[in-house]
Amino acid sequence: MTNKKRLAVDMDEVIADSIARFQEWYGRDFQLELSRESLRGRPAADAVAPEHQAALREYPNAEGFFRDLPIIADSQEVLFELSKKYELFIATAAMEFPNSFVDKYNWLQQHFPFIHWRNFVFCGDKSILNADFLIDDNAYNFDGFHGEGLLFDAPHNAHETRYRRVHSWREVGEILL
Amino acid sequence: MTNKKRLAVDMDEVIADSIARFQEWYGRDFQLELSRESLRGRPAADAVAPEHQAALREYPNAEGFFRDLPIIADSQEVLFELSKKYELFIATAAMEFPNSFVDKYNWLQQHFPFIHWRNFVFCGDKSILNADFLIDDNAYNFDGFHGEGLLFDAPHNAHETRYRRVHSWREVGEILL
Repeated sequence: MTNKKRLAVDMDEVIADSIARFQEWYGRDFQLELSRESLRGRPAADAVAPEHQAALREYPNAEGFFRDLPIIADSQEVLFELSKKYELFIATAAMEFPNSFVDKYNWLQQHFPFIHWRNFVFCGDKSILNADFLIDDNAYNFDGFHGEGLLFDAPHNAHETRYRRVHSWREVGEILL
Repeated sequence: MTNKKRLAVDMDEVIADSIARFQEWYGRDFQLELSRESLRGRPAADAVAPEHQAALREYPNAEGFFRDLPIIADSQEVLFELSKKYELFIATAAMEFPNSFVDKYNWLQQHFPFIHWRNFVFCGDKSILNADFLIDDNAYNFDGFHGEGLLFDAPHNAHETRYRRVHSWREVGEILL
């Protein structure tokens, strides 16, 4: 037991750059570019031509989608500092994509070795989390969450105004450290 | 959102009979019987001859250990009734055994189809759960849990006296329904 406050952190678009994988696979399959600007205010599948949408919706279910994702800038350094001050949990809605479990687990072990696997949570509904803060790019994950939500800036959530927005890990560090 | 109380339920030795798998594999590998009586007050690996203990400790990491586990008596019927009265989550410390993720997910989908995957939680430290009740066979999972723990009777926890013990799903139903 500890008196530290507890911080829960999402993975995709918060510490893992899954947009990069959408861009990579969209280019591979359709020889087209998916710009971050085109993703403003909508999920990736809604940003492409109607005849490509079904393919994009399936990408996260495909083998390897979550493997070797790039790391969001400064997340390692800032989370390492935060791990000294907070009880740090990684909480990802992995249940939506059962093929992602092992890739997500391995990715965390590789890139965030200072976070013990005891503090990984693969869930669906994040209202199950008992934490003081949740950093997440999806505002719906703050529904029913009893702590304070910090909305991590991402193209798809550009129009969300209900929660405090953080634009980078440097900014998270300034707020929470 | 709902006003229902929230009930979190462990998997192994609570709804899934993993002792049966230890017995099956121990018989397969050593042609010996592992009685439930021999498991009283200790983990399975401590109940066998010293030269067999390393093998038993590795069983839960092996491919298929959690596949097709028998179902603990009455858990389906009672949880189905409980799912009408409570917000029901399944919370398993799967992070200890990353090879178990997909088997556990598939087992739940097959045998407890009335529980949505949004309500599955694969975690390590169960103090992360925001729930009113936790039914679990490991007393250490109640450490730091803010709700009420109900200890599901299992051979290994025979000597645990700190928590209210429930001996069967029928008894859980009598308490919570």
